[in-house]
Amino acid sequence: MKERVEKLIESLEKNNLDAIFLTKAPNVYYFSGASPLAGGYLLVTKAGPTLYVPELEYEMAKEESIVDVEKFKRMDELYEKLKGIEVLGVEGTISYSFIADLKEKAKIKEFKKIDDTIKELRIIKSREELEIIEKACEIADKAVMAAIEEVTEGKREREVAAKVEYLMKMNGAEKPAFDTIIASGYRSALPHGVASDKRIEKGDLVVIDLGALYNHYNSDITRTIVVGSPSDKQKEIYEIVLEAQKKAVEAAKPGMTAKELDSIARDIIKEYGYGEYFIHSLGHGVGLEIHEWPRISQYDETILKEGMVITIEPGIYIPKFGGVRIEDTIVITKSGAKRLTKTERELI
Amino acid sequence: MKERVEKLIESLEKNNLDAIFLTKAPNVYYFSGASPLAGGYLLVTKAGPTLYVPELEYEMAKEESIVDVEKFKRMDELYEKLKGIEVLGVEGTISYSFIADLKEKAKIKEFKKIDDTIKELRIIKSREELEIIEKACEIADKAVMAAIEEVTEGKREREVAAKVEYLMKMNGAEKPAFDTIIASGYRSALPHGVASDKRIEKGDLVVIDLGALYNHYNSDITRTIVVGSPSDKQKEIYEIVLEAQKKAVEAAKPGMTAKELDSIARDIIKEYGYGEYFIHSLGHGVGLEIHEWPRISQYDETILKEGMVITIEPGIYIPKFGGVRIEDTIVITKSGAKRLTKTERELI
Repeated sequence: MKERVEKLIESLEKNNLDAIFLTKAPNVYYFSGASPLAGGYLLVTKAGPTLYVPELEYEMAKEESIVDVEKFKRMDELYEKLKGIEVLGVEGTISYSFIADLKEKAKIKEFKKIDDTIKELRIIKSREELEIIEKACEIADKAVMAAIEEVTEGKREREVAAKVEYLMKMNGAEKPAFDTIIASGYRSALPHGVASDKRIEKGDLVVIDLGALYNHYNSDITRTIVVGSPSDKQKEIYEIVLEAQKKAVEAAKPGMTAKELDSIARDIIKEYGYGEYFIHSLGHGVGLEIHEWPRISQYDETILKEGMVITIEPGIYIPKFGGVRIEDTIVITKSGAKRLTKTERELI
Repeated sequence: MKERVEKLIESLEKNNLDAIFLTKAPNVYYFSGASPLAGGYLLVTKAGPTLYVPELEYEMAKEESIVDVEKFKRMDELYEKLKGIEVLGVEGTISYSFIADLKEKAKIKEFKKIDDTIKELRIIKSREELEIIEKACEIADKAVMAAIEEVTEGKREREVAAKVEYLMKMNGAEKPAFDTIIASGYRSALPHGVASDKRIEKGDLVVIDLGALYNHYNSDITRTIVVGSPSDKQKEIYEIVLEAQKKAVEAAKPGMTAKELDSIARDIIKEYGYGEYFIHSLGHGVGLEIHEWPRISQYDETILKEGMVITIEPGIYIPKFGGVRIEDTIVITKSGAKRLTKTERELI
């Protein structure tokens, strides 16, 4: 973890920065090892890094952090510490208000975005990170298999979600990576159909999309099933999505762009005439954040490299009728890609 | 809900704004009724409000929203729609990157923060909002009572959290309002001691801090117990925190400032010689966000008014020894305050 901060320090000179100031929790964790709930600010100067936390987070941050920790009672104390810095590197996510305060109260003269420096580091997962993500995927696999068992006629979507989230936690997850999606019947056509009070009915397509947050890292998997026997149309769109998903997983490898990978699945779905019903990108990076770089979409030309972790999740959503999505979390390897979520895909 | 948007429209002229652009999920929900997971942007002009959502959120947003919904594929399409606007009202939480894009791509000339307008509306809860929050508090009460049962020697903190979070969900919660805190033994001295793999031991102080998110609104409650018989010192700090909590709840009423209310509890703890161990503010507003206005602290002079919902949560945290916190969510009434979380407080 120490090498990470060293890379930030090296970047100061390269980018003509007096310091870097990180406010976003996953970044603060990545570089310090601490995750103060009420906020923590990592200041990196040529002299080294310091983590500033509110008083109530001080004891825990000291336990977790690999860098020096200082506490403050009011933000004004923090702004005092920043005085003298003229050019500050910040994340694009820092708020408009925070920038205004840094200008006015800490007298910062110029801000430069340092997102690319952080992206370059975080987008490639180390062996240690991959081991954690594999474990997060294992918990998600178990949960999705439990959900497949739990989905039965008459049960409410929310009950299924409650059960599998409980299981994930008992299996070591800190919490769900995101609000568990159990979307049945017409709701399966809503890509973000978070589990509701709707009762599951016979003949429903049911999209199950869940993930586990384990040791700060996320996993993400989707499976779709039918309650009872599938109709011809349900089978048809399932087969198309399955083919698109498998072909994209097989094709993924270092050297290709995210856009090229997106096209592999998108073109298959288009050829079958369902292009207009695939209304999102093929996937996204997964790590400390559930959605991170690269975006596997028509608008991201990032070149895939060994150690990137992404999802492959094509879908077809037909309003009122229902939808199908099949998703795995995969890692780009030396010569191809490896599925980290492993639940069977032939479910309809 | 419609009157809310009307107040925003009225504020345009008052503040010399061409439009207001909302990006923060609770605000988007408050004014539109929709809660698109992948982001939604509410544009309010003199002509009325429009909610812009990514394609994959369109069907669901149309179901939920009380205002017109339009979909976009790329942010650039959205920036096109904003062209012609010169002075734009924004939230302080909008990101630095977003502001940069709005300047460059949508040609916005000037930004003005409209947080005060929103605060003024959201800080006072309507009868309908209070009914929802009461229900959220009821779910939290049940969960905290279950947690008190579940906390036994040898059990891991995380197991207790998993169980009560499951119960909250089965009782209708969308999810926990925040990461459930089950902090036992030395960890009880960490105000944000989210449930860990630590096993609960005999003699441990155990801080249980949880809340339910129900129908978009939050609740928040903390109780502290001892496993087995409390020591004299444990009893001593428990009694002090209990006295401070009760006196503050009894004193809360319209017309006093948040700071004055904070002082009531803080002075009691100080008088007993534990002032330096009360390392956070007395409480915070609760609503669509788990932490909102007012802050019940030495730094907030907001005058309390009927319909505000706040927490009262004094604590004493002695590093290595342990901590005690007792918290209720309360509503300011015409003449005083009413506890919305009702679990017994005499637990040690």
